[in-house]
Amino acid sequence: MIQIAILGLGTVGTGVAKVVAENRRQIERKLGEPLEVKTVLVRRFRDGPYRQLMTDDFQKIENDPDIRVVVETIGGVEAAYAYTRRAIEAGKHVVTANKQLVAEHGCELLELAKRKNVSYLFEASVGGGIPVLHPLTQCMAANRIDEIYGILNGTTNYILTRMVRTGASFSDALQEAQAKGYAEADPTADVEGIDAGRKICILADLAFGQQMDPAAVPMEGISGLSLQDVKIAQRAGYRIKLLGRAVRLPGGGRTAFVAPHLIPEDNPIANVEDVFNAVMVRGNATGEVMFYGRGAGEMPTASACVADVMECLQASPRRDEIGWSASVEGFEDPLTLKSRHYFRIRGSLADAAAAFGQVEVLSENGETAFLTEPLSGQDAARQSRALNVLACMRTLS
Amino acid sequence: MIQIAILGLGTVGTGVAKVVAENRRQIERKLGEPLEVKTVLVRRFRDGPYRQLMTDDFQKIENDPDIRVVVETIGGVEAAYAYTRRAIEAGKHVVTANKQLVAEHGCELLELAKRKNVSYLFEASVGGGIPVLHPLTQCMAANRIDEIYGILNGTTNYILTRMVRTGASFSDALQEAQAKGYAEADPTADVEGIDAGRKICILADLAFGQQMDPAAVPMEGISGLSLQDVKIAQRAGYRIKLLGRAVRLPGGGRTAFVAPHLIPEDNPIANVEDVFNAVMVRGNATGEVMFYGRGAGEMPTASACVADVMECLQASPRRDEIGWSASVEGFEDPLTLKSRHYFRIRGSLADAAAAFGQVEVLSENGETAFLTEPLSGQDAARQSRALNVLACMRTLS
Repeated sequence: MIQIAILGLGTVGTGVAKVVAENRRQIERKLGEPLEVKTVLVRRFRDGPYRQLMTDDFQKIENDPDIRVVVETIGGVEAAYAYTRRAIEAGKHVVTANKQLVAEHGCELLELAKRKNVSYLFEASVGGGIPVLHPLTQCMAANRIDEIYGILNGTTNYILTRMVRTGASFSDALQEAQAKGYAEADPTADVEGIDAGRKICILADLAFGQQMDPAAVPMEGISGLSLQDVKIAQRAGYRIKLLGRAVRLPGGGRTAFVAPHLIPEDNPIANVEDVFNAVMVRGNATGEVMFYGRGAGEMPTASACVADVMECLQASPRRDEIGWSASVEGFEDPLTLKSRHYFRIRGSLADAAAAFGQVEVLSENGETAFLTEPLSGQDAARQSRALNVLACMRTLS
Repeated sequence: MIQIAILGLGTVGTGVAKVVAENRRQIERKLGEPLEVKTVLVRRFRDGPYRQLMTDDFQKIENDPDIRVVVETIGGVEAAYAYTRRAIEAGKHVVTANKQLVAEHGCELLELAKRKNVSYLFEASVGGGIPVLHPLTQCMAANRIDEIYGILNGTTNYILTRMVRTGASFSDALQEAQAKGYAEADPTADVEGIDAGRKICILADLAFGQQMDPAAVPMEGISGLSLQDVKIAQRAGYRIKLLGRAVRLPGGGRTAFVAPHLIPEDNPIANVEDVFNAVMVRGNATGEVMFYGRGAGEMPTASACVADVMECLQASPRRDEIGWSASVEGFEDPLTLKSRHYFRIRGSLADAAAAFGQVEVLSENGETAFLTEPLSGQDAARQSRALNVLACMRTLS
């Protein structure tokens, strides 16, 4: 019998308890012995199926030698950070879906886990139930990773899908997402690109082996997106998606950012709809590989946590080095990255051509929408200074 | 310095040597020491960059204590099987992309590897460079896997894509694939579904934990596919794809087969084109997850082999149990599986309705194309006995 503890009993924590119970047979077959949730840390006791397991005292878990793995599902950084450190210090493996904690303190917590000879795993922090981090760090380990881009937030992808399909405005589509439970009452972290930003930082950390400081990563969401641009892009053979991107730059540097992009419709990621997520990883040997599925939800996310629990227990004594250094050296602002840029301006084609030379016109009627030749973000900003810019986005090419 | 040997110097073997050389830095960063190809087994010596490493005597590898991992890229079963056994007996880890060997002898070779306390890994045998097997067995370990289906053969997918896009017949599209180097001079294993069949067997072995006997798995290819059905399907909102499928059946049994299917165009797998592969895995907690990329090719396949080499070296002493039993019990013929069936008959709608009751007509002009309600393969065969059947395929629903 292997015993574990869960910190927090929200959506993911409850899901972990459910997966351990419902898939007991599959789990036991692989581990060779049964897995059981022994203790659940909560702030307030409440009735329900896990009442007997509850404690409000973390020391009960910390000092319990029978508990080998702690699943942290509290979220946020403060209590989660403190408990994670203490659990690792107590010689327990820790598993989490907490993207904010991993993005901000992952490197340090991995270092601590290494010293204490335990694992700290967080597959569920990116892509929910979609396997991404293990495939990236293990199966693609013989590649130099050159780029990762992805639809990392289901809420915004649902909103964009509704805007395309029904012609709803951003705010109407957001209300619909809230009514369906796909968006929080306060949707800021989703719609402003912060959630996707934390995830692209974690992907970049693992892909490039160096810390990506979330505070340095520009994050732009979709709250400023106009339905008009969605339609113009659509007619021109593009879909607008909110992408997190992490790119290895020619000079050896690297960058990461979150922003809406125009994506050519023959790119498989252009057709990822509703709340689905997808992550494209480009390795120098493998080429582009895509991982697709539900990026959130109780059972998918919980099942990724439980798989990590099993991985901790099977990888003795600890999961091997993933090579994530604390150095932030080499980070460059994404403004240096070249893309074709989409502009919609109040002005004529002549105005566009005066600023950018040759452009591809997508729409003209008082306003002009067009695509530039590939240019850096700096040049896009500089050359458009004299224009009356209504919208500007990168294309993924 | 970690030293390895390669058996065979064809496409994949050469690729392994290239990946080890080209991505030396990435590999060393993760392993903590350099990786080097010490010896290459060939049948005939020939000039080239690896001339100094060549031997035609397997004992040179078997008896070399410096060689810790052997990468088998010979293909086929005879020599590959014998050398794999001997390498494992000699206490070396073995890595392969050889789907035929794994499908036929994987369970036994894993058992032997377990006894000798080494790893036998074969990520590259399914999906080339696309991570599929590790994500399935590790990241989705907390799921009960209910179904896997996939486009597992790039050659046939290229042919189908050309038929749809250019209206080429099967034989013209095959010739084009051969001219481009996507199909062998003898294309039998690809176009008759045998290659896809070996891969779905391996996926089923790992998903269900029991041996799937390739000889028991019905494999139907695309050589009998008519352009007319491709077009009718297309107009009705479906794409025809060659799928390998492995399904957990309601009574606890399981089945697997390869056959062309009609796939609704809003299923992401319907839009997987050209030589790309994709594998969809449905877990009871995670839901559907898709893995997409280039399923073949020198560098993608080789990089998956090298990642497995690294995994062998990092997972000490050996990669953990994946729970694949030799028992073939519980296998059922896929005829029991229910699907909507596509038929094209020489006859009228009245003939179709007489045989199947209510049907959905897709095309009528002397011949009638239609979809039945969901029924088993047995019932589809039985009820169509009186009809003049020109084409019959399952739909994926």
